[in-house]
Amino acid sequence: IEQNDGEAMAILVNDMPAPDFAEFVREQALDLSHKLLSFLAIEQRARVFGYFQPEDQKALAEQMPQATLAELLTHMNSDERADLFNQLADNLKAQVMRLLAHNEREDLRLLASYAEGTAGALMSSDYVAVPARSTVAQAFEIIRATAPSAETVYDIYCIDHMGRLVGTVSLRQLILARKEARLEKVMATEVVTATVDEAQETVANLIAHYDLLALPIIDLGGRLVGIVTYDDAMDVAEQEATEDIHRGASVQPLDRGLSTSSLFAVYKSRVVWLVLLVFGNIFSGAGIAHFEDTIAAQVALVFFLPLLIGSGGNAGSQAATLIVRGLATGEVRMRDWFRLFGREVLIAAALGLTMALAIAPIGAIRGGEIIAMTVGLTMVTVVIFGSLAGLSLPFLLRRIGWDPATASAPLVTTLIDACGVLIYFGIATALLNLPAAT
Amino acid sequence: IEQNDGEAMAILVNDMPAPDFAEFVREQALDLSHKLLSFLAIEQRARVFGYFQPEDQKALAEQMPQATLAELLTHMNSDERADLFNQLADNLKAQVMRLLAHNEREDLRLLASYAEGTAGALMSSDYVAVPARSTVAQAFEIIRATAPSAETVYDIYCIDHMGRLVGTVSLRQLILARKEARLEKVMATEVVTATVDEAQETVANLIAHYDLLALPIIDLGGRLVGIVTYDDAMDVAEQEATEDIHRGASVQPLDRGLSTSSLFAVYKSRVVWLVLLVFGNIFSGAGIAHFEDTIAAQVALVFFLPLLIGSGGNAGSQAATLIVRGLATGEVRMRDWFRLFGREVLIAAALGLTMALAIAPIGAIRGGEIIAMTVGLTMVTVVIFGSLAGLSLPFLLRRIGWDPATASAPLVTTLIDACGVLIYFGIATALLNLPAAT
Repeated sequence: IEQNDGEAMAILVNDMPAPDFAEFVREQALDLSHKLLSFLAIEQRARVFGYFQPEDQKALAEQMPQATLAELLTHMNSDERADLFNQLADNLKAQVMRLLAHNEREDLRLLASYAEGTAGALMSSDYVAVPARSTVAQAFEIIRATAPSAETVYDIYCIDHMGRLVGTVSLRQLILARKEARLEKVMATEVVTATVDEAQETVANLIAHYDLLALPIIDLGGRLVGIVTYDDAMDVAEQEATEDIHRGASVQPLDRGLSTSSLFAVYKSRVVWLVLLVFGNIFSGAGIAHFEDTIAAQVALVFFLPLLIGSGGNAGSQAATLIVRGLATGEVRMRDWFRLFGREVLIAAALGLTMALAIAPIGAIRGGEIIAMTVGLTMVTVVIFGSLAGLSLPFLLRRIGWDPATASAPLVTTLIDACGVLIYFGIATALLNLPAAT
Repeated sequence: IEQNDGEAMAILVNDMPAPDFAEFVREQALDLSHKLLSFLAIEQRARVFGYFQPEDQKALAEQMPQATLAELLTHMNSDERADLFNQLADNLKAQVMRLLAHNEREDLRLLASYAEGTAGALMSSDYVAVPARSTVAQAFEIIRATAPSAETVYDIYCIDHMGRLVGTVSLRQLILARKEARLEKVMATEVVTATVDEAQETVANLIAHYDLLALPIIDLGGRLVGIVTYDDAMDVAEQEATEDIHRGASVQPLDRGLSTSSLFAVYKSRVVWLVLLVFGNIFSGAGIAHFEDTIAAQVALVFFLPLLIGSGGNAGSQAATLIVRGLATGEVRMRDWFRLFGREVLIAAALGLTMALAIAPIGAIRGGEIIAMTVGLTMVTVVIFGSLAGLSLPFLLRRIGWDPATASAPLVTTLIDACGVLIYFGIATALLNLPAAT
């Protein structure tokens, strides 16, 4: 293949599944990519192209003759076509638009008009719609005619004369139905749908919840305008999970993957929270400075400082993470707060006691009985306080309309750290003054 | 409905989609659940049952007459049937087994024999298999006969006389094919498969990567034994994402959801890492204790301690989280380490400089020029060190065969905190001694 053997290349590229080929091309130089793609039939080339990363698509598209690009766009799935088109430079958009057939042009205009992150931007217009008054036999004719270009032929959408969605029927049901039956007798009329302006997470959740192959998307008048298929829903779910995981470490969502993002994009996604957390930590510092006299009186206390405030923060970030994820998957609801708070009191008390028992002996060795008691009592208190704060923060954020995922582990840790300092030295001052007073 | 109106209940339950009905029943008392379920036809009841949480399934199943349970099991999907059966008490298992028909009994025995978390435990045996030598017309007859019980009829599996999988054909292709064509001429022979002992994550990734409706599962002899459908893959992907997010906050995977787990299960999932992190933090404490003289000489340094070591930890947990997620989705590969390390040097230097500029003025105000210099220099150093350590740790863990997700944010933070203490006081000692020496 490296010997520029055209025939071998042609065999290779036509045997590879489209996603694998896309990955293979991603590793090659732009020139070789063009060459490899040219060995594919236009339909297969359009499929492979759909699997490329957006930035690779753009780079390849911009180097193509415009007629070739127009042909490629014509053969791509309507949703992938719109995504690619949206990326092109404005003058290229106008030029390519002129080369497209009327149908593709209108379709592209419609799909390109929806805002990023909505059902409209995610949907495909390659679905099978059949008038509800057709017979099963007529429906099969329409399916056969549209099968080559449709994204799925397994869910068939029944529409009325106004184009409004009135029911769905699966291909499985059609195969079992009598040929002369009318679709309106066979179809299910309770249809799960979403409107074009629905958020893409909601669309993905609906598809997962109802185990749908595809979710029909309607406009405000109830007319069917597109479908979102399960594979696009899986991609959205993965993207959302990645964003949630990144937010959990106070990284703001990246538009692209880590490897392909620019250095500045990665810097930007990380710097804001890091600087904010620096200022959050100033409170811990101020707390420590405030207790300088206590520290001077008992320097052994400093040994346990990172450990105690760290433990509160860790327990809190555990609690926050469990709640944030529970809210994201819908397993935890707002009204569960009170019940979960009660459970958390017990869990955190058990955690705090376990950790106090683990650390008290070391306290006794380094500073005697009073230090052991101070350290143990502080541990129980900071773990309970940290856990309850970590549990409640995501609920609070959602209540005021923020994304609960903003309660990232570092934010929770920083907030609890500052309180932990006060709790620690507060308890220490009280306990250490007590024997001094007698 | 609360007035015990049987007819209204019957209408209500038969109109609700199965996942919604399952959620509704989950909120009701056990007695009412039984009553509501009894209004459903057995096929629908089996569908709804498949959507229940495992613990609810078990509770309901144990209260049913055994004959009813056996009938229910007979009508459930084979994969859900095996999951429910595996949960029952051993004596109930034996009794129910005797009441099942031969086919269901054998099927249950086979599926129940695979280890949790493998393709075998995830798969369903309700697929459509057709001899590769059949004609398209014959295939349609087989599809019609199996359609009512098959999980999907949209991917048809072609087998030879030994039961080995030799190709697949989609129902879409069959509809477009000539009736008298033989399947072996129409089918695709390059089939993506997994073996029964493959990990469920791998199965879910294959389905997502190739946009499959269902992945055929073969035994070691290449015989087709089951399929995993895309909706089960979506469930696995969500479960894996949840586990990764929990691990990121050092919470070990929970078998059930947060709300339904026992208090002890939640305690257990959190306590191990919390106690380990306590001991990790002892190193930070020891570091601080070691520099007691430095602290005594310049108490202003303590003010900046949480802030500086926290910043290193935060930057490190950001880097670790980005890499852990990248490795989990396959976007980052082992061989990318060197390139990403180079990028991270630049990103971390920029982050460190930004944060140093933010904090240096406060250093100058609280302690003068030397403290400002110490704090700024430490900030740049700990952020670069923390980021590079956080980036490298997941690669290192995978190299030695551990799950990279073990590099949870709290672990990374704790490790980097301890080093941060040494860096801070090391720099402070050097800079503060320098003027003292002149």
